[in-house]
Amino acid sequence: MNAQTETFEVAGYSRYPVTQLPVRLETGPASLRIGWQDGHQSEYHYLWLRDNCPCTGCVSSLTREQLFEICDVPLDIRPLQAQLVDGYLEILWDCDDHASRFHPGWLRAHCYSETARSERRLQPQVWDRERIAGHLPEFDCQGVMQDDVQLLHWLRRQRDSGIALIRDCPTTPGTLVQIANRISFIRETNFGTLFDVRSKPDANTAAYTNLRLPLHTDLPTRELQPGLQFLHCLQNDASGGESILVDGFCIAEHMRAHCPDEFEALASLPMDFYNKDRDSDYRYRAPALLLDDEGAVVEVRLANFLRGPLDLPGHEVVRHYRAYRTFIALTREPRFQFEYRLNPGDLLVFDNRRVLHARRAFDLTQGHRHLQGCYVDRDELLSRIRVLERTL
Amino acid sequence: MNAQTETFEVAGYSRYPVTQLPVRLETGPASLRIGWQDGHQSEYHYLWLRDNCPCTGCVSSLTREQLFEICDVPLDIRPLQAQLVDGYLEILWDCDDHASRFHPGWLRAHCYSETARSERRLQPQVWDRERIAGHLPEFDCQGVMQDDVQLLHWLRRQRDSGIALIRDCPTTPGTLVQIANRISFIRETNFGTLFDVRSKPDANTAAYTNLRLPLHTDLPTRELQPGLQFLHCLQNDASGGESILVDGFCIAEHMRAHCPDEFEALASLPMDFYNKDRDSDYRYRAPALLLDDEGAVVEVRLANFLRGPLDLPGHEVVRHYRAYRTFIALTREPRFQFEYRLNPGDLLVFDNRRVLHARRAFDLTQGHRHLQGCYVDRDELLSRIRVLERTL
Repeated sequence: MNAQTETFEVAGYSRYPVTQLPVRLETGPASLRIGWQDGHQSEYHYLWLRDNCPCTGCVSSLTREQLFEICDVPLDIRPLQAQLVDGYLEILWDCDDHASRFHPGWLRAHCYSETARSERRLQPQVWDRERIAGHLPEFDCQGVMQDDVQLLHWLRRQRDSGIALIRDCPTTPGTLVQIANRISFIRETNFGTLFDVRSKPDANTAAYTNLRLPLHTDLPTRELQPGLQFLHCLQNDASGGESILVDGFCIAEHMRAHCPDEFEALASLPMDFYNKDRDSDYRYRAPALLLDDEGAVVEVRLANFLRGPLDLPGHEVVRHYRAYRTFIALTREPRFQFEYRLNPGDLLVFDNRRVLHARRAFDLTQGHRHLQGCYVDRDELLSRIRVLERTL
Repeated sequence: MNAQTETFEVAGYSRYPVTQLPVRLETGPASLRIGWQDGHQSEYHYLWLRDNCPCTGCVSSLTREQLFEICDVPLDIRPLQAQLVDGYLEILWDCDDHASRFHPGWLRAHCYSETARSERRLQPQVWDRERIAGHLPEFDCQGVMQDDVQLLHWLRRQRDSGIALIRDCPTTPGTLVQIANRISFIRETNFGTLFDVRSKPDANTAAYTNLRLPLHTDLPTRELQPGLQFLHCLQNDASGGESILVDGFCIAEHMRAHCPDEFEALASLPMDFYNKDRDSDYRYRAPALLLDDEGAVVEVRLANFLRGPLDLPGHEVVRHYRAYRTFIALTREPRFQFEYRLNPGDLLVFDNRRVLHARRAFDLTQGHRHLQGCYVDRDELLSRIRVLERTL
């Protein structure tokens, strides 16, 4: 078997093409080091290697899930022998007579050096009005429905820019379900699976009135805010009702650069969000900005009209309000706002945990406005991209 | 109107009975202080009070959502006048000629002094084998289906202990849906809404084999692990297949007390979880233990067989493995394990983000084993409890 041409499948369905071969191996007390053809250096700890042994004794051939458990070998497990053979790293362990064999494409893909980790990190493409107006990623409905290449193209832009427009969708109610199902199932919420956005006399939330809606994320009252929001325009001949969209990541990065104390307050002080309805009483407590373990902003959670009373230690209250007001004031600045009027057949899709959306008030004396909406979670988007990437 | 007897509804549907009246009021530069009949002291900041004005100009009478936005008044807003009138706090503000009136029951319920905040905090009742064996909270199916008082009783125990058994459920397939719907809708996942747990030849995960399953939480590969897990036993005459349950919060608190460095490692170093299937490729990265803003453990995320390769800076790798192995070793200790054999008609419900579950291998030559399962998220549980508490 020649590692240079083979693609590799084990303990998963992903492929790991070999782009570099290991050329040097050096063993240390708790880890070994590999030098690659291109000069890159990788360190792999023995525990990590033993844990990732892809043999059929360690991984189920049926489910591709791990059977071996790392706590069943000593903490100081070491190789009796480690060598490079035809590009593979082969190890004979000092316990259980176990041997492992690691594919070079897989090893390189999982190198956890600082360089490799930083190269793997996805970077969102943040936008303000200037960067999005006239540059909105647009796709054709028929294309994304029928062609997996176009679908993948859309989904990657959706992931990176957080917003895209699908044009020329049929205006039949329910069409949205088929388009959303190109990704996966729809996330059900207290508003159902498919929801109709139009003015209703018994509105239980501001969205179902004809009132202006300030910039917000949907369902901050839920532990997991819905990921992608789909808004499909069936009819729009009322005057007013324009959509306004703001990249919350852009506002957050602006604050990080220009008012770091207030950025830090929004990322650390939890707010309380309440829904207020006869049949449900969802509440969730979380900071307006969620950062990942590298400090990158991964989520914005904000809706003025769904906040409950702040519940912070007294000395944090004014600090919170100062930061919150700054964020809101920035979202109101035209330089951050992208305004779009939905036309029948338009489907606007945006990351609800990143892109705040608003709506101008509309006047129903002059026409009707009917949108259908649904949510699909980020998990589904990312999983779909990975599965498409396996073959395309 | 007499504040002492009235219950109060505005900006929400909750009731705030008056248990104490304010007796002293003192205004400061950014906040006022209220002294209550029982000697308790509350501080309310002016920004906080203005933000929570419940008048019909500030809150929509239709949706009970806030119309007012706190960034539309000055940061240094102050009262022109503040007084206690018939138990209410009445304020005339120094801008917009706006007046606010606060109900004493509502004010006291939202006091954010350290004492009040600490009293409001829910405390899980953690358990080990000794505390749960023979003391499993049990409820009768008919009772929770027909009586809201029994339903509320179950749901509170479910929230606090993380586990309960519903007895004498019909063994008709699909019954589970009706029981779960007593709380809310079912959380859909890549395994569908209702899933059948039995041995399948084309198993795509270990659960669908007859193999032993080590202690784990379900779907750590998803950003939001499912909250409540329901396991409804329709048939169980195979030998083996006993369920083992461990309170992950108990293990975590044990580690916090006895090996704080390893507790800290599990609570801070993210792990990578991968699902491995032909049609999906879910991945999520998070620490095994999630702490809230007060440092309380609110989630455990762990399944040996759904881990992807660790992706940490090199110097953290051994630290992670040491902590992870400690956690797993503790879950294997009989003193923490509760063993239960499901009988037909039993419905076991546990918090999947807290209680790890395992299953012994079973032998199908001697009978059949068929469970049906589904998930309902924590949001739904907590919302249902709050709505029931409004009236019961």
